[in-house]
Amino acid sequence: MARIVMKFGGTSMAGTERIRRVAKIVRKQQAGRDGARNEVAVVVSAMAGETDRLVNFCREANPMYDTAEYDVVVASGEQVTSGLLALTLQSLGAKARSWLGWQLPIVTTGKHASARIDEIDAPGLGEAMAEGVIAVIPGFQGVDESGRITTLGRGGSDTSAVAVAAAVKADRCDIYTDVDGVYTTDPRIVSRARKLKAVTYEEMLELASVGAKVLQTRSVGLAMREGVRVQVLSSFVGDDAIPADEIPGTLIVSEAEMNDLVERGEMERQHVTGIAHDKNEAKIILTRVPDRPGSVANIFEPLAAASINVDMIIQNVGRDKGETDVTFTVPQADLPRAQALLEDRRDEIGFNRIITDSHIAKISVVGVGMKSHAGVAGTMFRALSERGINIQAISTSEIKISVMIDEDETELAVRVLHTAYGLDAPVDD
Amino acid sequence: MARIVMKFGGTSMAGTERIRRVAKIVRKQQAGRDGARNEVAVVVSAMAGETDRLVNFCREANPMYDTAEYDVVVASGEQVTSGLLALTLQSLGAKARSWLGWQLPIVTTGKHASARIDEIDAPGLGEAMAEGVIAVIPGFQGVDESGRITTLGRGGSDTSAVAVAAAVKADRCDIYTDVDGVYTTDPRIVSRARKLKAVTYEEMLELASVGAKVLQTRSVGLAMREGVRVQVLSSFVGDDAIPADEIPGTLIVSEAEMNDLVERGEMERQHVTGIAHDKNEAKIILTRVPDRPGSVANIFEPLAAASINVDMIIQNVGRDKGETDVTFTVPQADLPRAQALLEDRRDEIGFNRIITDSHIAKISVVGVGMKSHAGVAGTMFRALSERGINIQAISTSEIKISVMIDEDETELAVRVLHTAYGLDAPVDD
Repeated sequence: MARIVMKFGGTSMAGTERIRRVAKIVRKQQAGRDGARNEVAVVVSAMAGETDRLVNFCREANPMYDTAEYDVVVASGEQVTSGLLALTLQSLGAKARSWLGWQLPIVTTGKHASARIDEIDAPGLGEAMAEGVIAVIPGFQGVDESGRITTLGRGGSDTSAVAVAAAVKADRCDIYTDVDGVYTTDPRIVSRARKLKAVTYEEMLELASVGAKVLQTRSVGLAMREGVRVQVLSSFVGDDAIPADEIPGTLIVSEAEMNDLVERGEMERQHVTGIAHDKNEAKIILTRVPDRPGSVANIFEPLAAASINVDMIIQNVGRDKGETDVTFTVPQADLPRAQALLEDRRDEIGFNRIITDSHIAKISVVGVGMKSHAGVAGTMFRALSERGINIQAISTSEIKISVMIDEDETELAVRVLHTAYGLDAPVDD
Repeated sequence: MARIVMKFGGTSMAGTERIRRVAKIVRKQQAGRDGARNEVAVVVSAMAGETDRLVNFCREANPMYDTAEYDVVVASGEQVTSGLLALTLQSLGAKARSWLGWQLPIVTTGKHASARIDEIDAPGLGEAMAEGVIAVIPGFQGVDESGRITTLGRGGSDTSAVAVAAAVKADRCDIYTDVDGVYTTDPRIVSRARKLKAVTYEEMLELASVGAKVLQTRSVGLAMREGVRVQVLSSFVGDDAIPADEIPGTLIVSEAEMNDLVERGEMERQHVTGIAHDKNEAKIILTRVPDRPGSVANIFEPLAAASINVDMIIQNVGRDKGETDVTFTVPQADLPRAQALLEDRRDEIGFNRIITDSHIAKISVVGVGMKSHAGVAGTMFRALSERGINIQAISTSEIKISVMIDEDETELAVRVLHTAYGLDAPVDD
C-alpha cells in the first residue's frame, strides 16, 4: 500500500475521451500491483486550450485586467476537469469526489495570478483517501485569506500536485506529462540520449532552469524543501504501464536517496548526469568601463532593481590602462529593457559603447557527481576545443559548469559533450 | 437613489462584445436619472450554449452522473461570466467585483442540480453596494451546508436574482430577457396584443404556468413571498432606454400596489389581464369506469405518487348505468408514463378502454379583476361558441378560467377572446 498523488496536464485532460483514459490509469494506480491497494489523489489541469480561451476573454473584457477577477475566470477551467474526472472515475466504479481550491482549502498568498501556496491544512483529504475515495483536485488554484480565488500562474498545477503530496504525506508524486522522463539531454539533438532513472532535486533545478522544461521549476524547489519524491512519466504509455513497471519514468529525489540507489546497484554513479542548452540568453558588452571600485556595482544594481536576471559575467582587460570591457548575459526577453536602463546611466557608469548579441547559447553540464570528482571542467574545455568551439564565457556552481558559445554551434557542442562524458546509449545492433 | 438588482440571461452574456453592452446598461442604471445615483447588483447567466456544453460533458463522462459533481462542472459557466462582467465594468471606470455563490454565501438545500435557496446572509454585499461597488453575482448556483457547490436547475438565475433582491432589500429586480415585457397574449398570434404595464404576482404565475414563458415560475413565487417588485424588460433596447423611461418593461407587483396604480390613474382596471395558451397537455379518457366511491381515487393517487401533474378532470355520465367516463389532462411529456401506470392498474380501477389525445390545447383567461366581476366566464363561453369552437373541459381558479379545445383552434380562440375582453390595441391610422 502506498499513498500516491498523480498529476495530469491539459493534453491528457482535453476532452471526455482522454479523461476516460486518465481515469483508467488512476484506477490502475489505485488497484496497485498484486492486490496492494493504493490511496490516490489526482491533481488536474484544464483542458488544453481552455486556459488560453479564458485568458483571451479577460483580455477582451479589459486589457488592464484586475487579476482578482482574472483568477475567478481562469480558475473555472480546472474546476470543470475536476468534476468531469470525478464523474468518470465514478462511472468506472470508483469512489471519487472533487475538492476545489477553496474547499480543501489550498491557502495561498493574495498575489492574484501568481500566488504562492502557504498551506494546505486538509485533514479531511487524507481521511477520505484512507477510506478509498479518489480525491480529485484542480491544479493551479487556491484561495487567499480573504476568501477570494487565486491562481498560481501558468504551469502552477505541478506545484499544486507537489503541495498536495506534501500535505497528505504521499509516498510519491507522479507528474504525467508528454515526455516519458528526464533525459541525459534533448533527444531531438542527440538520438542516443538516455532516459535517466533518477536525478536529484538540485540536478533537476539546474536542468530545468537551463532549458529542459519538463517540470515547473517552482514545483521542484517545493519538492526539495518538503522532501516529496517526484516521478516524471508519460501519460501516453499504455494503460498497463503502471503495474508492469512501478517506476517507468524518472524519479526526482534527494541526494541521500540517490546515494542509496547507487549503493543498492539500482543506479550507476555518473560524474555528469545531463547536458542542457539554452538559447534564450543575450550577451551585452559594455566597452571601456572605468576600472575603479564601484563601477561594476553601477552596472548591475539597476538591473537587479528592475528584476533583470544577470547570469554570466566576465571582465576583460581593456586596451587602455584603467579601462575594462564588461560582458554579461541577460534573458533575451529583457534585452531591450536592460539596454534602455544602461543607456540612461551612461554617464554614471562611464562606458563607451553597448554591444549586444542574441546569437549565443549556454551549454551546461550538470551532475551531483562532480562535487567529488575533479576533471569534469577539463573534459568539457578539451572536448569543445578539439572541435574548434570557442568558449566566450564560463560560469560554475557546485553541480554545474556552463559555457557561452556561438548559437550556431549549440547542437554540435551538446553532441560532443554527451559523448565526452560517456552518456551515449549503447547502439542497438 | 434606488437599489436595483439587474439580471441578464445567456443571450445577453454570449461573448465579450455582448457583455460590454450589458456593462453599459448597468453603468447607465447606476448613474440614474438626473444624477440620482443608484446602488446596483447584477446577476448573470452563463454564455448562451455554455451550460449545454458543460451538461454534455457530464453526460459523456457518466450518463448516470452524480449531481454533486455535475454542479461543480456546470456552475463554472456563470463563474466565467461573473468575472468577465466585473472586468468589463472596471474597464468602463466602475468599481465592480464578483461574489460567487459560496462567497456571499447563497446557502441552498443540498439537493444537487435542483437546490432551493434557503438564505442569503450577506451583509457585506449591501455594504459594498452602498459604497458604490457594482456587485456581480453568478445566477443558478449556491453552496449547501456542507460547503459543496449546488445549482438551482435550469432557469434558476431568475430565482437567484429575486433572492438577491430580497436579501439586499432592493427597490426593484429587473429581469432583462429577449422579450420587452409581458403581453396581453402571445404577439405572434395576435398582432394587436398589448404590453402590460403591470401584472400581479398571481396573474404572472397563472400566465407563466399556462405558456407565457417569460420568467421562471419559481422566481415569481419567491418574489410574491418576499414582496420583491420585479420588472421584465428587454436587453435589446437601446442603451438610452433606461433613463428615457424608468419602467420600459412590465412590472410584477402585489395586488395592493396594482390597486394603487389603478387609483393613481397609471393603470386602467381590467377584468381580464391576459389570454394564455398551452399546447403541451394531453388528454386521457378512461371509459366505463365503475361509478362507485373510491374509483376516482384509484385513478389519481398513483399518478400523484409518480409526480404526474393532473390538471383538468371531467366525469361524464356513461352510456350504461353505474359506469362513467373519466377525462383528464396530463403534461404531454408524462403521457407514456401515465398510460403505463394506468394499464398496470386496469383491474383495480376497472376501466374498459384508455383513449389518449395529444391534439388538444388549453386556453386560459387570467385577471385579478374577475374576482370582483361576474360574467367573465359567460363572455368566454359565448365568444367561443359564436365561432363554433367546442369546449371539451373547463377548469377555474379565483383569477383564471381555462378551457380545453381542439389544438387546431388555438390561434382562433386566442384571437376571439382577446377581442371579446377588449384587450386589442387601438389600430394605428
